[in-house]
Amino acid sequence: MMKEAIYHRPKNSFAYAYDERTLHIRLRTKKNDVEKVKLIHGDPYDWAKEGWQFQYTDMFLQASDELFDYWLIKIIPPYRRLRYGFALYNGDEKIVYAEKGFSDDPPLNDIQYYFCFPFLNEVDVFNPPKWVKDTVWYQIFPERFANGDYSINPIGTLEWDSAQPQQDNYFGGDFQGIINHLDYLVDLGINGIYFTPIFKAHSNHKYDTIDYMEIDPQFGDKETFKKLVNKCHEKGIRIMLDAVFNHSGYYFPPFQDVLKNGENSIYKDWFHIREFPVKTEPEPNFESFAFTPHMPKLNTENTEVKAYLLKVATYWIEEFDIDGWRLDVANEVDHQFWREFRQEVKAVKPDAYILGEIWHDSMPWLQGDQFDAVMNYPFTLAALDYLAKDTKNANEFANQVSTVLCSYPENVTETTFNLLGSHDTERVLTLCNGDKQKLKLLFLLQMSFTGTPCIYYGDEIAMTGGEDPECRKCMKWDENQQDLHLKSFVKKLIGLRKTEPAFGSKGSFSIVESSAETNHLVYSKNYNNEVIYFVINPSSKPKTITINGKQATNLWTGEQVGADDNLLQIDAKANDFLIMKV
Amino acid sequence: MMKEAIYHRPKNSFAYAYDERTLHIRLRTKKNDVEKVKLIHGDPYDWAKEGWQFQYTDMFLQASDELFDYWLIKIIPPYRRLRYGFALYNGDEKIVYAEKGFSDDPPLNDIQYYFCFPFLNEVDVFNPPKWVKDTVWYQIFPERFANGDYSINPIGTLEWDSAQPQQDNYFGGDFQGIINHLDYLVDLGINGIYFTPIFKAHSNHKYDTIDYMEIDPQFGDKETFKKLVNKCHEKGIRIMLDAVFNHSGYYFPPFQDVLKNGENSIYKDWFHIREFPVKTEPEPNFESFAFTPHMPKLNTENTEVKAYLLKVATYWIEEFDIDGWRLDVANEVDHQFWREFRQEVKAVKPDAYILGEIWHDSMPWLQGDQFDAVMNYPFTLAALDYLAKDTKNANEFANQVSTVLCSYPENVTETTFNLLGSHDTERVLTLCNGDKQKLKLLFLLQMSFTGTPCIYYGDEIAMTGGEDPECRKCMKWDENQQDLHLKSFVKKLIGLRKTEPAFGSKGSFSIVESSAETNHLVYSKNYNNEVIYFVINPSSKPKTITINGKQATNLWTGEQVGADDNLLQIDAKANDFLIMKV
Repeated sequence: MMKEAIYHRPKNSFAYAYDERTLHIRLRTKKNDVEKVKLIHGDPYDWAKEGWQFQYTDMFLQASDELFDYWLIKIIPPYRRLRYGFALYNGDEKIVYAEKGFSDDPPLNDIQYYFCFPFLNEVDVFNPPKWVKDTVWYQIFPERFANGDYSINPIGTLEWDSAQPQQDNYFGGDFQGIINHLDYLVDLGINGIYFTPIFKAHSNHKYDTIDYMEIDPQFGDKETFKKLVNKCHEKGIRIMLDAVFNHSGYYFPPFQDVLKNGENSIYKDWFHIREFPVKTEPEPNFESFAFTPHMPKLNTENTEVKAYLLKVATYWIEEFDIDGWRLDVANEVDHQFWREFRQEVKAVKPDAYILGEIWHDSMPWLQGDQFDAVMNYPFTLAALDYLAKDTKNANEFANQVSTVLCSYPENVTETTFNLLGSHDTERVLTLCNGDKQKLKLLFLLQMSFTGTPCIYYGDEIAMTGGEDPECRKCMKWDENQQDLHLKSFVKKLIGLRKTEPAFGSKGSFSIVESSAETNHLVYSKNYNNEVIYFVINPSSKPKTITINGKQATNLWTGEQVGADDNLLQIDAKANDFLIMKV
Repeated sequence: MMKEAIYHRPKNSFAYAYDERTLHIRLRTKKNDVEKVKLIHGDPYDWAKEGWQFQYTDMFLQASDELFDYWLIKIIPPYRRLRYGFALYNGDEKIVYAEKGFSDDPPLNDIQYYFCFPFLNEVDVFNPPKWVKDTVWYQIFPERFANGDYSINPIGTLEWDSAQPQQDNYFGGDFQGIINHLDYLVDLGINGIYFTPIFKAHSNHKYDTIDYMEIDPQFGDKETFKKLVNKCHEKGIRIMLDAVFNHSGYYFPPFQDVLKNGENSIYKDWFHIREFPVKTEPEPNFESFAFTPHMPKLNTENTEVKAYLLKVATYWIEEFDIDGWRLDVANEVDHQFWREFRQEVKAVKPDAYILGEIWHDSMPWLQGDQFDAVMNYPFTLAALDYLAKDTKNANEFANQVSTVLCSYPENVTETTFNLLGSHDTERVLTLCNGDKQKLKLLFLLQMSFTGTPCIYYGDEIAMTGGEDPECRKCMKWDENQQDLHLKSFVKKLIGLRKTEPAFGSKGSFSIVESSAETNHLVYSKNYNNEVIYFVINPSSKPKTITINGKQATNLWTGEQVGADDNLLQIDAKANDFLIMKV
């Protein structure tokens, strides 16, 4: 067995509390190198004459990626404490692995040899709000969803959908427009809305905040916003706002004060000014988002800034009853700020959802003290490479998502935020080159994947658009311009997610097979002896799949298939899918 | 190159902020498998027409252990942000490794391929108090250090050192005794005292607290303690107390209240009672330390308990000006408690030292939000195996300490708390089977190792004792019973640590060579072009070592050695050591 490939380090994704009683312990080994792994485990303080009292329990192979196998065990230690190691077997070979390295047998009198999960304290358990798992999100870019109140149109507002979106044009989308179309969302099956920023700002995207305590007047006033939240809540829809706390806008009054008064400004420590006077050209001499002078980075270590932003965080919950915050550029803000943010937010609404925008490996933010979830861009990129762009085959996709799933605790992946696109990316149908069949497969994958799906407004009716600003077109409300067939496809998927427990958040996800040659993917979701097999076949050739079972129902068509020998043969057409419940 | 052995995951010990400008990036590869590693790096937002703008910079081989090589680079990103990957070379072979896996060349247009250190925020930097690095600690078990006030002797106090220590006998050690002997510590070179618990408790070890706000009367009163702290401060000695917050004692009044009033007790949620009525036999039906009913585990998630213990934490700092807390059984208390503990403690004394008792891998507590250091038992155990017990050879020792050093950020290892023994272990001389030469080599290793050394009272005068309670004998004050030769040896080492920058905290530690055959170990400490080589030769045969340099001074004897060819030949006698400054 290849010792160099064997990896475990307690906490993070390798040893964590799944709930207040259950630990998950994971081990990584070289792919196909180890036949069997057992956990060697006991209470740290359970000693007898012959030495430490431990036992062996089998681990199971959770997933594999290109290089590695990942083994998992779910265990309830009676006293919430665990010392442990691993016994690895291959044929006649056995090795033992623990914190102090490798040995032939588990030592009886050297407790320090073993890994330690010292105590399962409930408060440290990663514990996102219960409602999130069963939420289907819908992302709204408010300027472009619907114009319901012409009286607050900004100057120069264009007629709805009368022009291509640009960095600086306006179509007058507002809260009243959203209120007018809530039934559309309810009909689709949506029960959560994520709004890109709504606070007073300079641009049409509102990521350059001027006042975090005010609604941008082009969207309405606080009364309308309250009405929007209340109407949503009546309809079972939760509301998440965008917290742009990494940076303010250029026209944020404290930054304007620094521009004007320089070193004498009482706000000079609100930002990261490298030298005075402040300059914006040729490049800003202050820290900013990327290198843009329009978005000066806020000094979130400064106690006044912190107090101000934390007040913002609680104000919109306490006064307007919003249900969550999506944190823009969350990775560039200090961890300590997010820890205090979590404390303040959860104090006023214990089941508020905190979602960070992080595109890369996010484990440091997902340890229970900061976020409830991150935007699952690794899923997005892998899914698009596989099904939209054809740059990754099914096997590469399976490896990539297995790597990601095994990089996080299970309670993290269960509430991760799975998107196919957003206001920051090309529209998914455009990435599919207009191929709606590809888009359907992507929607199926998204709706059945571990985590919670989010639809970017209009993707469900086949809207298109390239990179920003093209992806921010006006929502098409004329049904003649909507792809109603696609919409009902998405609606049906959402319905299955809600009615079939194994399809939805209760089902545990496993890759069953994936092929680099035929490019088909089979995965399953399991719940209570119920298994649903998903077959995705994006190739131009049909594919026959064999699954275990005597009888299965095609959840999409209602057809039944049977087999006498417990081996069901099912046929996936070219460019098509199957959803089989066994 | 063996891909399965290559490991990097941002933050923790692999990518961390060393200070407010500098990042350290580390990579693990299979031992002797990779010739050269370069960091591929750039600002995440620095793009040109041809794609992302990155550069290559060499990493250096920091250390190796049994299976792996560890590569390190110290880098100052101009905008405090970094995207990066690794180029690994062996002969003609080159592979590139980053977050999304392996490739032949670094992609130009896929920033998501790379690892990310999104922003170096100063508040997140692991930043222990500056004074700790240069502290030489002395651990005092107050009941056994010196009896200076007979009027407060507990009933049944025995004459000093007139009997073997037992679980329940008393010799009357107290604060006045310590005050009387401060000059002894100053003479030795001590500038920090770590006291095992001093608060009112039931046993002689005081780990079963009755009142956290009171001094145990057998040690003195608050006035005497204040005098002790002040006198220590006058002499440049800092004071660290033991915070036993994982559990209280059985006689802690809230626990007594629960025993008496059961479910009706207002303190019932202060503990983890599994069922009422509370029972202590055959085993406690409440969570406790190990399985002892004498130490019921405190519910540190309960807001009242938290408020009480945090008040304790700040009270002794604010009222008595103590300089640090050592946290007993720190690993079994929730992380959230320690985060709040840190905030409270640092608010009243920003340079207070927070030291956790953790015997195993401690990375989850050393990320800047909880502890400043842990007790470095992995060092202790490896050093004892090598030099006291002869169960590990020099090569195994070198591998073990390299594993540990590379498991933590450098700013963590610089202030780790290195001990050879404590009130919880057999005395080091006893473990050496009485061999004082072995003990000397251990003291040398401890005093020159990365981190801060702590001497358990009496080890410096060759006191002996087996496991608890034998290791808690009365301090020998009769100079005829002290090994004054050993004491002056230790004093000389401490002196070198203080006068030779490279010997002390400024020197950076590297293993130079280690042998399984001859059992000798050579390591160096470097500072500003100054190198000190340490040779430890515990074998019964002399050993000649070759080191680079034209001239060197033996810092122990003052002798000079020279070489014409830049290769110094130096002879280490059997069972001896050398300290050569080049």
